Amino acid sequence: MADGETVDWRWIWGEAGERPRLLHSMVRVRDVDASLRFYCDGLGMSVLDRHDIEAGRFSLIFLSYAGYRDGPAAIELTYNWDQAEPYTHGSGYGHIAIGVPDVRAAYERLADYGGTPSVAPKHMVEGGPQMAFVKDPDGYSIELIQIRR
Amino acid sequence: MADGETVDWRWIWGEAGERPRLLHSMVRVRDVDASLRFYCDGLGMSVLDRHDIEAGRFSLIFLSYAGYRDGPAAIELTYNWDQAEPYTHGSGYGHIAIGVPDVRAAYERLADYGGTPSVAPKHMVEGGPQMAFVKDPDGYSIELIQIRR
Repeated sequence: MADGETVDWRWIWGEAGERPRLLHSMVRVRDVDASLRFYCDGLGMSVLDRHDIEAGRFSLIFLSYAGYRDGPAAIELTYNWDQAEPYTHGSGYGHIAIGVPDVRAAYERLADYGGTPSVAPKHMVEGGPQMAFVKDPDGYSIELIQIRR
Repeated sequence: MADGETVDWRWIWGEAGERPRLLHSMVRVRDVDASLRFYCDGLGMSVLDRHDIEAGRFSLIFLSYAGYRDGPAAIELTYNWDQAEPYTHGSGYGHIAIGVPDVRAAYERLADYGGTPSVAPKHMVEGGPQMAFVKDPDGYSIELIQIRR
């Protein structure tokens, strides 16, 4: 795909032929503005696409660091317009991990963007990257992993 | 990184400098063999790394379609050795989406690899890709999205 070429919104996942790949993780959220503040303003993601489905009374919002070029590896937020109760968290699902150049900076920054500090930055393995955990506005656990030595 | 070069296992996420990126989603599983059968034999992923942590009595297994070259976008399985009860699923977490060239083939194939068919392949949007849902051996929902027209 050339720069500036229009993307068919029905085929945002691209056409990579025979190569299967991971596309996104979906979580349900209660307050889209709070989520966008956390993931976009706080973590630097962009909204790839937003679909507001009047008939089903829900919205889908695709977030990513990448673009459409190779198919987005992204987070999908589902917002059900009539959801009154907070969503529950079972014991099975763990977290989404995001690689960042400076774990401590991201960890501290996210507290100003609706994140709740959970596990402070530390080296889980000697000589390895720093890691930390922050909860997003709906309580989903986000792991921050250092990607710069 | 050149082909065949050894990867420092502490830095499998790569060193991409300033560019943050999505790394993986973690889920807890009860039967590693069943999970590997589903994700590797059934869905074509590979084990990037497996760490058995005797001191904490847990194992971490990283699965991916990619390699280490650009940092793996992967699924992380956590296996707690002493977990007796099935994990619970809350109402919040949704699914992991995987792009595949043939949704119906993958959907049918996974039934032979410990998957439970959930939503049969269909076009969610006219003119768009086929999509389907299958549950993995622990009940996590996997969305299959067609990536070939």
